[in-house]
Amino acid sequence: MPSPTAIGIDFGGTTIKCALVEDGKIVERGQLIDTLHTGDHSAIIEALLDRILELRRIRPDTVAIGIGFPGIVDSINGIVHRLSNVPGWNDVPMCDILRRRTGLHAAVENDAKSMAYGEWKYGAARNGKDILCMTLGTGVGGALILDGRLYRGANLGAGEIGQTSIDYQGRTGNYGNLGALEKYVGNAQIAERAQKMYEKAGKLVPIEQCTPAILDDAAKAGDQVAKQLWAQLGLEIGVALANAVWLLNPDTIVIGGGVARAGNLLFEPILSVIRSATMPTFYENLRVVPAELGNDAGIIGSATLALDSLPRA
Amino acid sequence: MPSPTAIGIDFGGTTIKCALVEDGKIVERGQLIDTLHTGDHSAIIEALLDRILELRRIRPDTVAIGIGFPGIVDSINGIVHRLSNVPGWNDVPMCDILRRRTGLHAAVENDAKSMAYGEWKYGAARNGKDILCMTLGTGVGGALILDGRLYRGANLGAGEIGQTSIDYQGRTGNYGNLGALEKYVGNAQIAERAQKMYEKAGKLVPIEQCTPAILDDAAKAGDQVAKQLWAQLGLEIGVALANAVWLLNPDTIVIGGGVARAGNLLFEPILSVIRSATMPTFYENLRVVPAELGNDAGIIGSATLALDSLPRA
Repeated sequence: MPSPTAIGIDFGGTTIKCALVEDGKIVERGQLIDTLHTGDHSAIIEALLDRILELRRIRPDTVAIGIGFPGIVDSINGIVHRLSNVPGWNDVPMCDILRRRTGLHAAVENDAKSMAYGEWKYGAARNGKDILCMTLGTGVGGALILDGRLYRGANLGAGEIGQTSIDYQGRTGNYGNLGALEKYVGNAQIAERAQKMYEKAGKLVPIEQCTPAILDDAAKAGDQVAKQLWAQLGLEIGVALANAVWLLNPDTIVIGGGVARAGNLLFEPILSVIRSATMPTFYENLRVVPAELGNDAGIIGSATLALDSLPRA
Repeated sequence: MPSPTAIGIDFGGTTIKCALVEDGKIVERGQLIDTLHTGDHSAIIEALLDRILELRRIRPDTVAIGIGFPGIVDSINGIVHRLSNVPGWNDVPMCDILRRRTGLHAAVENDAKSMAYGEWKYGAARNGKDILCMTLGTGVGGALILDGRLYRGANLGAGEIGQTSIDYQGRTGNYGNLGALEKYVGNAQIAERAQKMYEKAGKLVPIEQCTPAILDDAAKAGDQVAKQLWAQLGLEIGVALANAVWLLNPDTIVIGGGVARAGNLLFEPILSVIRSATMPTFYENLRVVPAELGNDAGIIGSATLALDSLPRA
């Protein structure tokens, strides 16, 4: 029997990506959709239905559709409540719409949870049972797999490691949360901090030259300011992760997103904090690893979530 | 059919308490055992077997024994690895011993997890699905019920909210963990802080007069120093809890232990921090409640864990 095929959709704030997924692998990609210029939510849904039609032509045995959304999603009832950076999505009964229009089983999930699911089933957290996934970018998101199941929490909001505090008298987060990790290690904050540190070192660097990628190259080329900044970022991320480690005693921490590409510049100080701030029971068997599926984690995770939630025959 | 009866045992650092438990209620208490003066671990086990014999005489239909230990316990294999304040317990195969000597089913668990289980099944967290229990005392412990199951983590260590950091440059915890909550709100720390605050206010108060109970009375009688201290303790506990709320999105937080008796002096600032540092999805349906079972939570929880783990006929 061939493996079941599903369509996975990664709904981003600027671009929507979709693909046919089989056995955790992308077998065919659909055309991108421009999130901001396609129109309101019904125009986007029509564009999505076009893509679904095209992909099903390639694989008529497609059985399900899964979508990861950047916002608040009721994955139980298939409703998209609100998106972080895309207006016009208020309580859209997305699964009902997709089922009605395509006849296929559909599943929706928050994007960080979709990505974590992908990394768990087919990526860096394979074989893990208790997993924390963290994504570093403009914001800092996260998701949890606990006891071998996607953990959503009472109101489906669990996993927000980026909003946890590393200093109760520190920087103010988006929700009044003092010391929110995101306000230290988000991309914009990294750029600002780099610029200030360069300035202190007597060097004027335009903010556009302070992206994680450029700072990564700089550190690897021996730039002391960049090296110092990565060590500090690693410390701060490590503190938030050590807190999660004490609470959850995970076997795997997956770190994804642009910043994670800094590799050992970031992973070494993170591991060092976790070791120095917890105890052997907590860190001895803990793996802290970079995400493996990269930009495809959301597509693969969404498709797999849809397949795994198919009603049993 | 009558409810099954189990013996619950709360193994404390100074006293071991035991009782017959039926339907989450204590129906008969056994004599206390003095932990420190009874002798080595085999002498304590013999004393425990005496108590078990006495209780079974009262209820010959007893089917199981559950024990909560203050330390590292392998609840899956029934082994007590190490206790925090009682020497001589190294990898004791407790469940095997109890089964062999009594013929009854036996279960062991960490004490904080036993208490949480009791509060979940019969106490303040009844009807909860995602629960954080926190115990305030000499140390600050905790345990998690997630998705309607006791959550233990990869190495059975999960729940240690007292070791999480509220300030990455703060006080040093027992494990090198800077800013460990326990080092702010443990009983000894509360006493020290109170004494210093009184001193600053021009009042010399002996440290013995700075117990949580006395500070509680003082604040309720209008003592400004005590009131200020409780507000600060509530803030610090609230910060650690807000972090757990972002990560776990629980429906219930249960706070137990001596300090929790301060009631609104403590619960008001805690709630205020959680509200001001999270978002409605996380706090709207969140209950933050004092533990209900008091000193019996461990006995009731252990007995219930033992009953719930009985092999199915």
